[in-house]
Amino acid sequence: MKQVVVKCGKSVIDRWVNNVSSHLPEFEVVGYRSESVRPEDVSYVVGWQPDALWVNTFPNLKALAAIGSGVDHIANLDQLRSGIPVLRTVSPDLAQKMTEFVSMCVLSWHRRLPAMIEANAQRTWPVFDSPLASERTVGIMGYGRMGSKVANALDALGFRVKIWSKSPREGLAFPYYYGTDQLHSFAEGCDILVCLLPLTNETEGIIDYSLLKCLNKGGCLINAARGSHLVETDLFKILDEQWLSFAYLDVLAKEPTPATDPIWDRKDILITFHCAAYISAEAGAEIIAGNIRAYERDPANYKGPVYNPAIGY
Amino acid sequence: MKQVVVKCGKSVIDRWVNNVSSHLPEFEVVGYRSESVRPEDVSYVVGWQPDALWVNTFPNLKALAAIGSGVDHIANLDQLRSGIPVLRTVSPDLAQKMTEFVSMCVLSWHRRLPAMIEANAQRTWPVFDSPLASERTVGIMGYGRMGSKVANALDALGFRVKIWSKSPREGLAFPYYYGTDQLHSFAEGCDILVCLLPLTNETEGIIDYSLLKCLNKGGCLINAARGSHLVETDLFKILDEQWLSFAYLDVLAKEPTPATDPIWDRKDILITFHCAAYISAEAGAEIIAGNIRAYERDPANYKGPVYNPAIGY
Repeated sequence: MKQVVVKCGKSVIDRWVNNVSSHLPEFEVVGYRSESVRPEDVSYVVGWQPDALWVNTFPNLKALAAIGSGVDHIANLDQLRSGIPVLRTVSPDLAQKMTEFVSMCVLSWHRRLPAMIEANAQRTWPVFDSPLASERTVGIMGYGRMGSKVANALDALGFRVKIWSKSPREGLAFPYYYGTDQLHSFAEGCDILVCLLPLTNETEGIIDYSLLKCLNKGGCLINAARGSHLVETDLFKILDEQWLSFAYLDVLAKEPTPATDPIWDRKDILITFHCAAYISAEAGAEIIAGNIRAYERDPANYKGPVYNPAIGY
Repeated sequence: MKQVVVKCGKSVIDRWVNNVSSHLPEFEVVGYRSESVRPEDVSYVVGWQPDALWVNTFPNLKALAAIGSGVDHIANLDQLRSGIPVLRTVSPDLAQKMTEFVSMCVLSWHRRLPAMIEANAQRTWPVFDSPLASERTVGIMGYGRMGSKVANALDALGFRVKIWSKSPREGLAFPYYYGTDQLHSFAEGCDILVCLLPLTNETEGIIDYSLLKCLNKGGCLINAARGSHLVETDLFKILDEQWLSFAYLDVLAKEPTPATDPIWDRKDILITFHCAAYISAEAGAEIIAGNIRAYERDPANYKGPVYNPAIGY
């Protein structure tokens, strides 16, 4: 029987194996440390943070299915054997979850929910007045499936929306900026900066002091992409200078960060535990199994999203 | 010179007088305790919690402009002199603010923002998984300018929406219930109950134990209307029974509630200080001045919202 090998964190690997197995009864699904793995029989790897050099050890592999929507977590990706596609895990559900999450962060900064919670603890009765959403500008970095859905949702809620992405694009309903040259012009005048970019060589460290300084004073950062998009020390500095007022960080350079990390002391950062578009083993296995079955049926005409080395994701 | 008399809380009365005055230079605008009040010259009262018996003491009054969108705060309203209309303060901005506020509460309950804030304080790194918005049902009580805008916003965010209002209505895009007979059927199956009703004799105490018990177990109440819509002891009871998990109370029976009130001890209630659709003196004076000027110009054809005793608001 052909095999699917699952590689992910040990706390969830049993759930992933069981769920992938229930959706793909035609395969034997095994964890990567199982003694049952027979390298010659492995047709697919399903992986979070797999190493491409390890993936290459399966001689008859047909495809690697990445857990999570990005591919940046795959070590040595540029050395993956030629002809092995990386099937990306994209679903309307993940874009929906991200939209809910970003809308929540934007609204709770806009209407100051963390300060309301603090006022409850203090048993005070302050007045919380705020401008209208139409007086706030949200800049969204990234305009893929997630960015476009988030942009539409924030627009419907009344916020002004601007977009920045890597490449030129025509006919959008929002002010659109692209490329390194237009990055600072894009950020100027934004009250809230939302990062939804894929992590590539070009976007690593893109949120630095100079970019954050372009935001309006008192502004807010929401990073729901990858920790490495942000130069964390630059964020701390600009928060200390009170140029920015708050940051929602769904992702950090190191996850989970230890309890001793001084980031926990900050009242101006809320960590949200990489749950913005959290993919459970149950939901994720269903999407990935669907992708694997579609690829298995007709590899030449596979329509799902696949990693494209030319653009980095 | 004809006068406009302003009645509101002492902490904001100077701002109200100044702002109304700047928008209505053709009137002398004075606070209700000012010695400059000349009863014969008073054309308009602008009031938060005015007593109609006091309003009646101005013999040449043309209209009473109510601060805030409701009229329930006017004492002895049924004894207001015949022929004196109550101009209600309605504006798209207030419906927008309410929409932002309710969307924030719904999303933050749905995605568990208060628990995330607590997890930050505990320096833990939990997993926060949640169903999709499409798996949550929000029941909205009240379908006026605010309720309809809130319903559309939550629908756009992906939530299932149900409506309850006082009277029958046709052709809505949402499941619609009306009248006392359909109240419990409406609430059954809701995960979140949002109250946006006007306060009338019929709606006072409408949110009681039997209504809250209709919600799905683990559900949430958002009261952004008036404190007296809710039987607070019933809410405490059903939270203690853990049938509901959380309540956002923008309004309380007594505002501000003192620091000694045991409600502050509850981790399952967030008080939001009657700021859902907070109307600042600046914004409110502009709306009210516009209403007064329109009424002054052509009372017979005044198109703004006016209190209708037949329906109670």
